[in-house]
Amino acid sequence: MKRKKDLSRRIFSIGTLKTGNRNLISDVKGVTAGHVTLDEGTARTGVTAVLPHQGNLFRDKVMAACHVINGFGKSTGTIQIDELGTLEAPIIMTNTLSAGDAFRGLVEYTLEHNPEIGRTSGTVNPVVCECNDSFLNDIRAFHVKPYHVKKAIEDASVLFAQGDVGAGRGMSCYKLKGGIGSSSRIVEIQGKTFTVGSLVLSNFGQMKDLVIGRSKVGESTYKIAPPMDDEEDGKGSIAVILATDAPMSSRQLKRLCKRASVGINRTGSYIENGSGEISIAFTTANRIDHFNEEPLIPINIINEEMIDPFFLAVTESTEEAILNSLIHALPLKGRDGNYRRALSEFTEFIPEDVFIKDEEERSHV
Amino acid sequence: MKRKKDLSRRIFSIGTLKTGNRNLISDVKGVTAGHVTLDEGTARTGVTAVLPHQGNLFRDKVMAACHVINGFGKSTGTIQIDELGTLEAPIIMTNTLSAGDAFRGLVEYTLEHNPEIGRTSGTVNPVVCECNDSFLNDIRAFHVKPYHVKKAIEDASVLFAQGDVGAGRGMSCYKLKGGIGSSSRIVEIQGKTFTVGSLVLSNFGQMKDLVIGRSKVGESTYKIAPPMDDEEDGKGSIAVILATDAPMSSRQLKRLCKRASVGINRTGSYIENGSGEISIAFTTANRIDHFNEEPLIPINIINEEMIDPFFLAVTESTEEAILNSLIHALPLKGRDGNYRRALSEFTEFIPEDVFIKDEEERSHV
Amino acid sequence: MKRKKDLSRRIFSIGTLKTGNRNLISDVKGVTAGHVTLDEGTARTGVTAVLPHQGNLFRDKVMAACHVINGFGKSTGTIQIDELGTLEAPIIMTNTLSAGDAFRGLVEYTLEHNPEIGRTSGTVNPVVCECNDSFLNDIRAFHVKPYHVKKAIEDASVLFAQGDVGAGRGMSCYKLKGGIGSSSRIVEIQGKTFTVGSLVLSNFGQMKDLVIGRSKVGESTYKIAPPMDDEEDGKGSIAVILATDAPMSSRQLKRLCKRASVGINRTGSYIENGSGEISIAFTTANRIDHFNEEPLIPINIINEEMIDPFFLAVTESTEEAILNSLIHALPLKGRDGNYRRALSEFTEFIPEDVFIKDEEERSHV
Amino acid sequence: MKRKKDLSRRIFSIGTLKTGNRNLISDVKGVTAGHVTLDEGTARTGVTAVLPHQGNLFRDKVMAACHVINGFGKSTGTIQIDELGTLEAPIIMTNTLSAGDAFRGLVEYTLEHNPEIGRTSGTVNPVVCECNDSFLNDIRAFHVKPYHVKKAIEDASVLFAQGDVGAGRGMSCYKLKGGIGSSSRIVEIQGKTFTVGSLVLSNFGQMKDLVIGRSKVGESTYKIAPPMDDEEDGKGSIAVILATDAPMSSRQLKRLCKRASVGINRTGSYIENGSGEISIAFTTANRIDHFNEEPLIPINIINEEMIDPFFLAVTESTEEAILNSLIHALPLKGRDGNYRRALSEFTEFIPEDVFIKDEEERSHV
Repeated sequence: MKRKKDLSRRIFSIGTLKTGNRNLISDVKGVTAGHVTLDEGTARTGVTAVLPHQGNLFRDKVMAACHVINGFGKSTGTIQIDELGTLEAPIIMTNTLSAGDAFRGLVEYTLEHNPEIGRTSGTVNPVVCECNDSFLNDIRAFHVKPYHVKKAIEDASVLFAQGDVGAGRGMSCYKLKGGIGSSSRIVEIQGKTFTVGSLVLSNFGQMKDLVIGRSKVGESTYKIAPPMDDEEDGKGSIAVILATDAPMSSRQLKRLCKRASVGINRTGSYIENGSGEISIAFTTANRIDHFNEEPLIPINIINEEMIDPFFLAVTESTEEAILNSLIHALPLKGRDGNYRRALSEFTEFIPEDVFIKDEEERSHV
Repeated sequence: MKRKKDLSRRIFSIGTLKTGNRNLISDVKGVTAGHVTLDEGTARTGVTAVLPHQGNLFRDKVMAACHVINGFGKSTGTIQIDELGTLEAPIIMTNTLSAGDAFRGLVEYTLEHNPEIGRTSGTVNPVVCECNDSFLNDIRAFHVKPYHVKKAIEDASVLFAQGDVGAGRGMSCYKLKGGIGSSSRIVEIQGKTFTVGSLVLSNFGQMKDLVIGRSKVGESTYKIAPPMDDEEDGKGSIAVILATDAPMSSRQLKRLCKRASVGINRTGSYIENGSGEISIAFTTANRIDHFNEEPLIPINIINEEMIDPFFLAVTESTEEAILNSLIHALPLKGRDGNYRRALSEFTEFIPEDVFIKDEEERSHV
Repeated sequence: MKRKKDLSRRIFSIGTLKTGNRNLISDVKGVTAGHVTLDEGTARTGVTAVLPHQGNLFRDKVMAACHVINGFGKSTGTIQIDELGTLEAPIIMTNTLSAGDAFRGLVEYTLEHNPEIGRTSGTVNPVVCECNDSFLNDIRAFHVKPYHVKKAIEDASVLFAQGDVGAGRGMSCYKLKGGIGSSSRIVEIQGKTFTVGSLVLSNFGQMKDLVIGRSKVGESTYKIAPPMDDEEDGKGSIAVILATDAPMSSRQLKRLCKRASVGINRTGSYIENGSGEISIAFTTANRIDHFNEEPLIPINIINEEMIDPFFLAVTESTEEAILNSLIHALPLKGRDGNYRRALSEFTEFIPEDVFIKDEEERSHV
Repeated sequence: MKRKKDLSRRIFSIGTLKTGNRNLISDVKGVTAGHVTLDEGTARTGVTAVLPHQGNLFRDKVMAACHVINGFGKSTGTIQIDELGTLEAPIIMTNTLSAGDAFRGLVEYTLEHNPEIGRTSGTVNPVVCECNDSFLNDIRAFHVKPYHVKKAIEDASVLFAQGDVGAGRGMSCYKLKGGIGSSSRIVEIQGKTFTVGSLVLSNFGQMKDLVIGRSKVGESTYKIAPPMDDEEDGKGSIAVILATDAPMSSRQLKRLCKRASVGINRTGSYIENGSGEISIAFTTANRIDHFNEEPLIPINIINEEMIDPFFLAVTESTEEAILNSLIHALPLKGRDGNYRRALSEFTEFIPEDVFIKDEEERSHV
């Protein structure tokens, strides 16, 4: 599989916290991600699924929250996350106009595993995040079909490809090839170790604005290779999925969500009008049993005075996840001859000090 | 068409403000609504479309707002309404699990009329409201297809049926047969006349709680005909669409949305856990041209000191729209022998003084 | 004390749930309320304090939430409740323009008991709710002084007066004399008993709109005694404080807050433009220790599937608290000869069936 | 006046947009700011006032919005800004525990100019922003008195001091001396010129995190001069006031508010738990006349497709305002010997390229 060579790429060293073993959202135990990549004809799109745990999510919901920093977007399912503070199905990502088909596919998948839905139990809340990949993908062709959702879920694994794969196949970030990226951070409090993971679908920004490790990489790349659609406005977006094994309330998870913005901003964005920005966070440590009949549910929450390291972990892992989505992507030609360069073609503009020196240093990756 | 006989039904007299000519949301000039009703086999469902005007909504958007009073629901499109304050496609209503197919159908419809989408222009924000009709409808069967959206839009007219039609086909309200209802009110300020219209998809509440004209009708109906699913929790919802020709900002329209709750509450509900409640308001008087290239857009807003009559109009028209959804519906048998009685079977429990005395009084209806 | 005779007044029977022993917010164990009433010269105002428990609230915070249904108001402290989900001082109520002095008084009180504030610890979040009593009170005179806050807190007791006392001294509700009212409800789940209490500062509405037990009492009272300021717009407001001993998260408490609106609406209001409506809820069952150094805090939350009785308890206790604020108030003459009639002058318009029949039935009151 | 020498200091060159003539919020025509600085005994605090225009704000309100990014704060007045979208008094800034006195002072000031308040008209919404200056200031002593508000308003001018003045007297930013800073940007659209101005009260962050022009200045300063209270958590905050003469709706102004976060983040912060962050924006171009009796009010809004330059202007002016608050402040000794170093002591760590080269380049400053 050609993605394998991603592992040979240079590895970023962003921020001050330690990364998890894989530097992926799957460092949070139980979390996996999978892709379906569609690349035939005019299709440059796909589906990515994030699974909070490997059981039946409808019956064993995870505590969750979401936050909209810029609502120029069409994601579904956020209303109920806000109200009930739970997530009851895998999170699905795809292109904007296919969100309906992804919704349908996610409902089908959930019905298959829960025969009581629509009979003796209520319905399911399908959470679908989307970005507009129409520069490379023929988004009008509805290439994504409902069954692709199930395939992406079945593909989910602790190891998964990054860059121009899955929902990220046709996405552009800072007018370079973007897509799926992930990263993780370890938080230690009084000897207890927690993990925070981030997975992004990146599709926002103008090339000139790209900053890596505080260096304006975008200005340099722009000078030698301005993007084809330079005149066009940035009609981008980003979706950020945050996972943690630290027990938190939905209120605390919402605070985590808000720090995803800081990670995004550190890569240079100023949240343009067209850049829909949404983040969703869940904790695997607080579960809600759909069939629980006890009146009281015991949970743990994090001591708010000790929440700062988690905020920093969200910031750093989100920043690095975006950069990973860029560095793992290859250049791609799409519909109507539209062409997107990749950051890997411009690595000379990235200062050495944002890469880890000895690759063995992170032998775990 | 069998709905014609609805016109012979008794007409409610709710509140103090005058109704519009048709006592429908279409009293706001330009607004229409249409249905596709699906009633074959296990299908007791459908699609209802509300069109804010008869032009190309994507190119000529209407100013809008939305409000979630109880977010136990899966409606789509609210994030962008909140952010941009506009509506750029017809509003579609259907059953919960078909919201994905309705999303797809609404995108197809919009693409058909706007070849620039996905090529030189951004995407469209499809607003789909939903309620769970699974007591009568086999919601797991996905009876609604994307093309039904187009059909419902094409069916749209200033005159449209109420009750157990369109998206309302399988809905239950106060455990009686519910569905689509509509009403309107006239607001006069300094000789200027404005119209406020409401259209609801009603699917919430326990029978005992139903209040009509301050009379606890539900207690009486419950005594003689308790609903089949009495033990079950109320997994309902309501979507309220508000239209006005008074010029307002999206902030003011959001304030209108919040008063929809008052109308709902007046029929007896206390917003149960499972009763998702969402309202969307738009004004036909403030338009946003998608291709406008002028930096400044002149609009009018209503003097906030004169907004109270509009709040009252929302309250009264929403209360009456809910009652209309009940009074226009016939009893219905659905999946697995499930049966829903209709309010029209219990009119003896409704006090006379909530009906208008001389039907000619509202000869316009 | 003349308020004693309140106890001889007729007692409302609103809704279906049982009331607590005292039918006061103090039926939630640990909760007390106290007043300072200012009635000299042009003063018709005061301060009311609600104490969530009898310990040091700054060190032993209670989990809390708030909700703004209509933000035409100047309450302080809501931002931090929303962010951190806690309440760390008594809740203070007073007139609008005195909210600053009340803020100051509440800070003084808290500093007195917490020498570490401003030295080794952070500051305190003073929550002050307000309504505009300027029809009866000379609100420009700043009659409320910071030390009145401490006095109101010291006055706090499980038994406290209702009606035209404390912050309610100059308030008007439905253009009748309003002020402080309280009520409570008992919720039983699987043999466990919980209490929900409501305390309101009522100051909203037009006389014609008043509904008691579904009877339009306001229309009748208006006919025989229209209010002096009939032409004037309703510049009212209401603050609702909700207490419970059921363990809930701040998200769940926010859902409780939203149901306060239903109780308000049931008395006839449609949330006029000028009627600021805010609610604050806290649970005595989930505490946050300011000096806790453990990373994880165990709490209980209520099973969301069993939250409906709490919603109903909020609805009923808030409706009854408003009516209690009316029935306990006496007529009052205020600044510039302004005069406000009292509901107790019009009891003939209140249908018998909203009062409990045998006063002994609630001998506990 | 010793502040005069500020003008000789080095001038930052942040971002790509042109600054206004003074590089102050007062570049927006009509806007002024003024200070009262309290520095006697244990006082290291004060009051700063921002006036949106020079007329009677209560009678001639400006359209406004606010946004809370982190609600660990006690600001007042935000509820009504959100609801009504207007600002009707100068914005006051002071220390946290003095917000009550500032509220009182601002009410007094407004009453003085509006005899109808509390008689024939409603009350006023006093907007007070605050940060916690207790490291340097004896915040328990309530040094700020209500009359200081009036003095700060009277001091308001298009030219005003920055740094450790007014409300900023005792504030710390990145554990260096912070306080008041301001900056402005020019936006040109189709030949039309608009101005965006920012004024901050800076009091947040850890020294190590400070970034200037993408250089980690904080790490260097920390190595040679770690702050006295290094062990202590950051109990900071920041308030950002944004002004523009571009006509916008309150929804659009709220979008501006959200981009203040980007400017803050660019200086290195990741929005720590204790760092309350709030922003308020107003436009001088849309006014609401308190006594207007026309039902419709004509306003202009900006074409949303052209709003990006305003977002960038907010980002850049807020970033620079924070840096200005640092560079203009002198070292200060406060209560109990607490001492705060100033950035001006560490200018060798600031890379040359963030200063403008030829001071004459901005001869207008």
